Amino acid sequence: MGKVTIDNKTSVYPMPAFLIGANVDGKPNFMTAAWSGIAGGEPPVVTVGIRPTRYTLKGIRQNMTFSVNVPSVDLVKEADYCGIESGSKIDKVAVCKFKVFYGKLETAPLIEQCPVNLECRVMHMLDVGSHILVVGRIEEVYASEECLTDGKPDVDKIKPITYVTDPARHYQALGEYIGKAFGIGLELRS
Amino acid sequence: MGKVTIDNKTSVYPMPAFLIGANVDGKPNFMTAAWSGIAGGEPPVVTVGIRPTRYTLKGIRQNMTFSVNVPSVDLVKEADYCGIESGSKIDKVAVCKFKVFYGKLETAPLIEQCPVNLECRVMHMLDVGSHILVVGRIEEVYASEECLTDGKPDVDKIKPITYVTDPARHYQALGEYIGKAFGIGLELRS
Repeated sequence: MGKVTIDNKTSVYPMPAFLIGANVDGKPNFMTAAWSGIAGGEPPVVTVGIRPTRYTLKGIRQNMTFSVNVPSVDLVKEADYCGIESGSKIDKVAVCKFKVFYGKLETAPLIEQCPVNLECRVMHMLDVGSHILVVGRIEEVYASEECLTDGKPDVDKIKPITYVTDPARHYQALGEYIGKAFGIGLELRS
Repeated sequence: MGKVTIDNKTSVYPMPAFLIGANVDGKPNFMTAAWSGIAGGEPPVVTVGIRPTRYTLKGIRQNMTFSVNVPSVDLVKEADYCGIESGSKIDKVAVCKFKVFYGKLETAPLIEQCPVNLECRVMHMLDVGSHILVVGRIEEVYASEECLTDGKPDVDKIKPITYVTDPARHYQALGEYIGKAFGIGLELRS
């Protein structure tokens, strides 16, 4: 099996498609982010890489709070739209008809239509070159009641979006079940 | 649409399932990580959250290099196994029959069977509580020739694994195509 080097050096699979929220000059705004992930568990920590010029980052700096909203496949147009337009010119909340609510932090806007919402407080902002890595403590997580089974989030009801990077640049739903975690690997134990 | 708060505060969807590699005391070892993501583009930067007690972290500290390997669904047993056992007790490379190769950094072990491999040099190690957030510059990316179309990575051949967190704790393949990025959202433009 031969290997070749790849020009696009951020080629990992899968990537998420999240909507990052912040209040900018007192008004809610959202941007799409695939460059995000969990960093730690106790406390719960999430990261998101954001270009310094982004309007959303201005709001994160103003309040030192932000949100990570997990859209479902039903919101794929809205999720994509928020990565195309800038909140400096367009009221994306109005165009997308997002119903915004606030939680305990009071300044991190959350999208009611997104099945899962993380409310975060900035812990660190790390300059990594083209992007600022915003490291946030997850203060609260909200889920839509209709996406729960036995009171817990159900991925089959959440129907999250995966972003597939260059050269494909498209979104896919989750697919076939392929095994239990901390389970299927036990078959390799001798 | 009602909202409830969720106990598991790292509930985001989707998460990846990567194999993080490091040479520990001169021998290659791999651990599974779902808490990983891209942080920046120029330079390309990746993060991974690792508990301080993990054997792999010892190797990352020794060489200040590591790898991020993207397994395909065909490697789901191996990907899961590397999250169950510790390299301090088990030679996971031998059990999983991984063919290991090295790239330009020389000390970051890469898995030949994984369709995509990122070779990384540590930029920062940030203490975020229970985990160390390892922030790495991606120095090179390798892809298996058989997973390319027109010389570029093809997700349909890579067949990456998605980890679905608690309470499901399982792996899923990617599924249905749901739209073009920087494309489907344009329909919302007035």
